[in-house]
Amino acid sequence: MRIVIPVFDGFTALDAIGPYEVLHGLPDAQVVFAAERPGPVRPDGGTPALLAEAALADLDSCDVLLVPGGPGARRRLDDEPLLEQIRRLHELAQWTTSVCTGSLLLAAAGLLRGLEATTHWSAGAILESYGATYTPRRTVFQGRIVTAAGVSSGIDMALALVERIADRTHAEALQLLIEYDPQPPFDAGAPDKAPQAAKDLLAEWRPYTATR
Amino acid sequence: MRIVIPVFDGFTALDAIGPYEVLHGLPDAQVVFAAERPGPVRPDGGTPALLAEAALADLDSCDVLLVPGGPGARRRLDDEPLLEQIRRLHELAQWTTSVCTGSLLLAAAGLLRGLEATTHWSAGAILESYGATYTPRRTVFQGRIVTAAGVSSGIDMALALVERIADRTHAEALQLLIEYDPQPPFDAGAPDKAPQAAKDLLAEWRPYTATR
Repeated sequence: MRIVIPVFDGFTALDAIGPYEVLHGLPDAQVVFAAERPGPVRPDGGTPALLAEAALADLDSCDVLLVPGGPGARRRLDDEPLLEQIRRLHELAQWTTSVCTGSLLLAAAGLLRGLEATTHWSAGAILESYGATYTPRRTVFQGRIVTAAGVSSGIDMALALVERIADRTHAEALQLLIEYDPQPPFDAGAPDKAPQAAKDLLAEWRPYTATR
Repeated sequence: MRIVIPVFDGFTALDAIGPYEVLHGLPDAQVVFAAERPGPVRPDGGTPALLAEAALADLDSCDVLLVPGGPGARRRLDDEPLLEQIRRLHELAQWTTSVCTGSLLLAAAGLLRGLEATTHWSAGAILESYGATYTPRRTVFQGRIVTAAGVSSGIDMALALVERIADRTHAEALQLLIEYDPQPPFDAGAPDKAPQAAKDLLAEWRPYTATR
């Protein structure tokens, strides 16, 4: 079971590492972080650099493709070589998945036309501009394509995916291993739940989440 | 606000990246991943290697110390040079925090004697062997020391910490940014919730979680 995670400068670390932490626990999992070329890749927080161990174009097998998002994903919607690799790996894969604005890359690659899909709550309109139907659900299965909502949702998606790949007991064992019994101290994780003051503050920090 | 995250081979990636994803969003945050020496460090999943950018011993300031766990933490409870760095950075820090079995390193460094603390559900007895009182709560504040339970709990802990460092609105804005509105597909994230079949499967895969 080879899991390929494409990474690029400006990806969001938790988009990749959340589902990675679930999926690498599958007994026969082999995870490959791959980039345009092997070497260091920096997430949107600037650090830590993560070492991509392969070039995407060199991979000749892929069972699960997991595309993270982040500001770097939004900047690559016209990056045809990357989109071509996503299309190629999707053809090889049993499952093509995304977290957060990773789904914009799937959409830009032409994989979501006519499908329901999710993305970060701030990016639904961009998703729809590529012919997908945006839904704010946290995990959306459409055949063998699975999209997850913003950042932390990749953990929920990965658990649901493990049930499909293996079975429910495997998913529950991995949930227990990572002690995923979430108890957020606040209830502000979605736009219809967050107080206006938090939305206003976020709009100051991250203009792209407000304008798009 | 300098946040220091010590890493070592065999750390659990999500222990570090979960709270990192929250804390690096603080407007004035500077995160430093540091190890015994700069260079690549491998998490317990074997990949991706992450580039530590500094040697722990070279850091002369630290506002938040965040110690991740993982099998590599369990193996370093007698690593006196690492424990000495943890003690030294704790003296500099406003907040000393841990995720998962990272609290075993705090305990082995002598920082948790007489305090309540949490850790991965499988490691409570080890924690107590160092004079701490284990509690299965997800986040435990004791003065300026904060411990979180297993792996994914670091996200909850980090949000609670942002409220203390900044205010509740900052914490809610970061929760919204990472769309942390968890909807686990199963309810198996704690030993008293997971079905026996999941626990049995996990005990086959990860003997240390069963025997300790």
